[in-house]
Amino acid sequence: MNRKGLAILMRTRMIPNNLSISPEEAIRTQPHIGNKQPDGKSNNPSFQKELKVVQESMHSAIALSKTDVVNPILSEFSEDYLSLSAENRRELLVGLSQEYDVNRKQVRELIQQYLVLEAPSGEKSRASFLEEESLSSAFYRTERNLRHALQPKYEVLFDRLNTHPGGLKFLTILRTDILSILAEENVASLRALDSYLKEKFVTWLSPAALELHHITWDDSASLLEKIVAYEAVHPISNLTDLKRRLGLGRRCFGYLHPAIPGEPLIFIEVALLKDVAETIQEVLWDDPPAPESEAACALFYSISSTQPGLAGINLGKFLIKRVIELVKRDMPHISTFATLSPIPGFVQWLRSKLASQKKLAEAETESTLHSPSEDRPVSTFRENILRPEEEKALLDSAVDLTYGNNGVEVMWNLLSSTNCEWTDSERLLSALQAPLMRLCARYLLQEKKRGKALDSVANFHLQNGAMVERLNWMADKSEKGLHQSGGIMVNYVYRLDKIEENAQSYFSGGHIQASYNLQHHLQPQNEE
Amino acid sequence: MNRKGLAILMRTRMIPNNLSISPEEAIRTQPHIGNKQPDGKSNNPSFQKELKVVQESMHSAIALSKTDVVNPILSEFSEDYLSLSAENRRELLVGLSQEYDVNRKQVRELIQQYLVLEAPSGEKSRASFLEEESLSSAFYRTERNLRHALQPKYEVLFDRLNTHPGGLKFLTILRTDILSILAEENVASLRALDSYLKEKFVTWLSPAALELHHITWDDSASLLEKIVAYEAVHPISNLTDLKRRLGLGRRCFGYLHPAIPGEPLIFIEVALLKDVAETIQEVLWDDPPAPESEAACALFYSISSTQPGLAGINLGKFLIKRVIELVKRDMPHISTFATLSPIPGFVQWLRSKLASQKKLAEAETESTLHSPSEDRPVSTFRENILRPEEEKALLDSAVDLTYGNNGVEVMWNLLSSTNCEWTDSERLLSALQAPLMRLCARYLLQEKKRGKALDSVANFHLQNGAMVERLNWMADKSEKGLHQSGGIMVNYVYRLDKIEENAQSYFSGGHIQASYNLQHHLQPQNEE
Repeated sequence: MNRKGLAILMRTRMIPNNLSISPEEAIRTQPHIGNKQPDGKSNNPSFQKELKVVQESMHSAIALSKTDVVNPILSEFSEDYLSLSAENRRELLVGLSQEYDVNRKQVRELIQQYLVLEAPSGEKSRASFLEEESLSSAFYRTERNLRHALQPKYEVLFDRLNTHPGGLKFLTILRTDILSILAEENVASLRALDSYLKEKFVTWLSPAALELHHITWDDSASLLEKIVAYEAVHPISNLTDLKRRLGLGRRCFGYLHPAIPGEPLIFIEVALLKDVAETIQEVLWDDPPAPESEAACALFYSISSTQPGLAGINLGKFLIKRVIELVKRDMPHISTFATLSPIPGFVQWLRSKLASQKKLAEAETESTLHSPSEDRPVSTFRENILRPEEEKALLDSAVDLTYGNNGVEVMWNLLSSTNCEWTDSERLLSALQAPLMRLCARYLLQEKKRGKALDSVANFHLQNGAMVERLNWMADKSEKGLHQSGGIMVNYVYRLDKIEENAQSYFSGGHIQASYNLQHHLQPQNEE
Repeated sequence: MNRKGLAILMRTRMIPNNLSISPEEAIRTQPHIGNKQPDGKSNNPSFQKELKVVQESMHSAIALSKTDVVNPILSEFSEDYLSLSAENRRELLVGLSQEYDVNRKQVRELIQQYLVLEAPSGEKSRASFLEEESLSSAFYRTERNLRHALQPKYEVLFDRLNTHPGGLKFLTILRTDILSILAEENVASLRALDSYLKEKFVTWLSPAALELHHITWDDSASLLEKIVAYEAVHPISNLTDLKRRLGLGRRCFGYLHPAIPGEPLIFIEVALLKDVAETIQEVLWDDPPAPESEAACALFYSISSTQPGLAGINLGKFLIKRVIELVKRDMPHISTFATLSPIPGFVQWLRSKLASQKKLAEAETESTLHSPSEDRPVSTFRENILRPEEEKALLDSAVDLTYGNNGVEVMWNLLSSTNCEWTDSERLLSALQAPLMRLCARYLLQEKKRGKALDSVANFHLQNGAMVERLNWMADKSEKGLHQSGGIMVNYVYRLDKIEENAQSYFSGGHIQASYNLQHHLQPQNEE
């Protein structure tokens, strides 16, 4: 599982304060800002009272013995919680994580009981069979009790909310808040609570409980509104754009959970095309779309999650598989399943690479100036990022000397310009193409973190069994596309007969399947 | 929660060998019978090989590292399992419970680590804040690891099957088998596995994951076929009967799980009536039904679960609540929500009561014969089950002397007759009515087991917050109705403003809410 990657891949447009989710809720959940005292604590008595009231209803929701009677209290607690200020939410959540933690006294008692019992051996003499079965029963009982005792008391609250109408949605809001607190400060108890809640979500949102829904123009406006609001990859500009994405030659599928009706947890957009598209422009703006009967390729061009509170829960994996099965069944003439994907981390990685080389080079130049010595070794961290012919082309095209003294500096400066002015110059574009494409291939296929692809989207698709098929130059000329990946996009391809095998070899050995063309980028050329 | 009660309440027509569920499956899952060797072990080599193959695929399904690749193996395992004989299934399941149990070595190691760590105190000096947070993190990590280690290894198999297409259904078949093995012999490890699997089901089948579906004549034949097959309370005799139950003045609602499409896990049948019905005959045979606009009462007359493998999992509770909400919303003129329910344990309870009194009386008579002694005390277990006037009426009407020498004997004999001949005699019927109605009220309101109503259906509705409203004489003249409850049925009523309160007082004090009329049955009359 690749939490961070998916979080990036499925980044949604978060509401600025990070504490709420949907526009309607934004209004009522907007924390009261500007009431903080200088010491960071709110001394406003009406707030303090409010917090106490909510803590009280939270306490009741956990302490009461039966879910039946607990329902009005859960409703009250959820409503009151949403009225709290960010600061009070923090206090309540940290309190929950500490006061309703594991009962450690009970755990220690059960551990003592457990350690003196003998584990069942599995081999029983027939004579004492009954006696041993009863000893075994006692052992299993204690083990189960210990297992239960190790569950924190706040589990009750989570479980009750999960079965309460609207409770699952409320829990995603709660977790959004938790994540934003943890992004600011590391509270160990709250982190433990978050990891527990996340495990709960994984169980509740098992693919078995999710319904794959084909989203069409006939769906309710409130559902479609959410598609517009949460489309994270290629923003939907207007209703016509939305209608096109749901119309002829297009498909949109979402995972719905029965407890959160009318709001897909994640959705994927598909274009039915003759060939695997090279640019996002042709996907978003081909008009009219190709007839569906002539389509040979289903292209996944966008996948967005709608719930920041579900960060780190891999919903996309099963979604892609199920969508492929569905499309395959309905349209057997479609033989290629591919993506046109962003490479969100490429430019950031490249710039930090260039910056460190720049620094090393400067340091060397300086030390050479101060103590010229022929046998000073070149730093082992130095590498030739650019090939000589690439550097030459760059320097030739960068006529304006402010671009830098060497290829690395020129490239760093070009990639750091706020308005990507280099895209306006044919010469710069053509000088950058070769090194950027080559370095992008290297980034995707060779740069790893803990044995997995460094790029989050790459890791997501490779985990799912895709292979890296093709890099596309100037495939996304949007501001975001240029800034994140120098305008490059990548096609991942899902070959149905290789999905399992690819996923397996990626998992076990971090092996990344790539087309011949892509690997070709990486072959060493006439070295300097 | 009342496992046994619900199991009885929702008893489904099990396929005789108890090892399979639906008719289609019955054919392929029918265990090979008649191949047993005298020593109880199958020496047929083809069987042994088969078992080994299935054990091997089970092993792979657990041992492989990724769900992605595990799918074909899960399919293979499920298919192979269903081809196994009952005996081999038993061997496989017991093996699973023992070989893939908790890793106790790891648990003991983690316990040692855990015991030396100090639990976070929650109170931290600001100075060592960071250090303490990192110690706390280590503590929480160990605690989580211990919690995970206490989960048996077979959990992986359950989780993987749950996310595998058809896997949830397969798991219900697996549990049906487990329950039928445990009904025969107590294998501690298998019982522990069953309790673990049951907890899993409770999470997976949380009401949040279930969809309330209004079942109509427009549903697929395959779904309706299941309603016919699983209706457990009042069997559906033919298609016309089914059509009536789904037509005007009637409703049928079921809980569907996305992973088991087209097969409700539990369903409830509702009649929209002018008044609370007194007999099941008028519900099943009123023709034509009253116009829906005139209905003032929604009567729940049948609730059936379809999955023997989900025994003990309370799906009915939330179903009734949600159906009430739905009906209330669509038909605000409906003000009464009641049931017409069987009293499945009444006659059995009464007969054993009568039998023990008969025995005590016989023993006393004998001892009086052998050693006549005026001051011999009457056994403290003796009680006057019948009131004198009831006994007199019974003896007067039982002209045929073979019925017995006293009221208790007469009643016992009448209730034990195979064909319930007493229902053919007006005199017997009228003599039995008063004592049976009175004793039935006593059974429902006063007979308890661990503080809960002894009758499973009563306990089910009382738990849900209903009250006992009315007993109806000769309300179910079917063979089953006469044998189980002497033809008596009971109306439970759900008063919307009292549901929570009733449920709470039943839970906390075992207090049973009953109408004045019903309590009246229990008032002592002129005592002998």
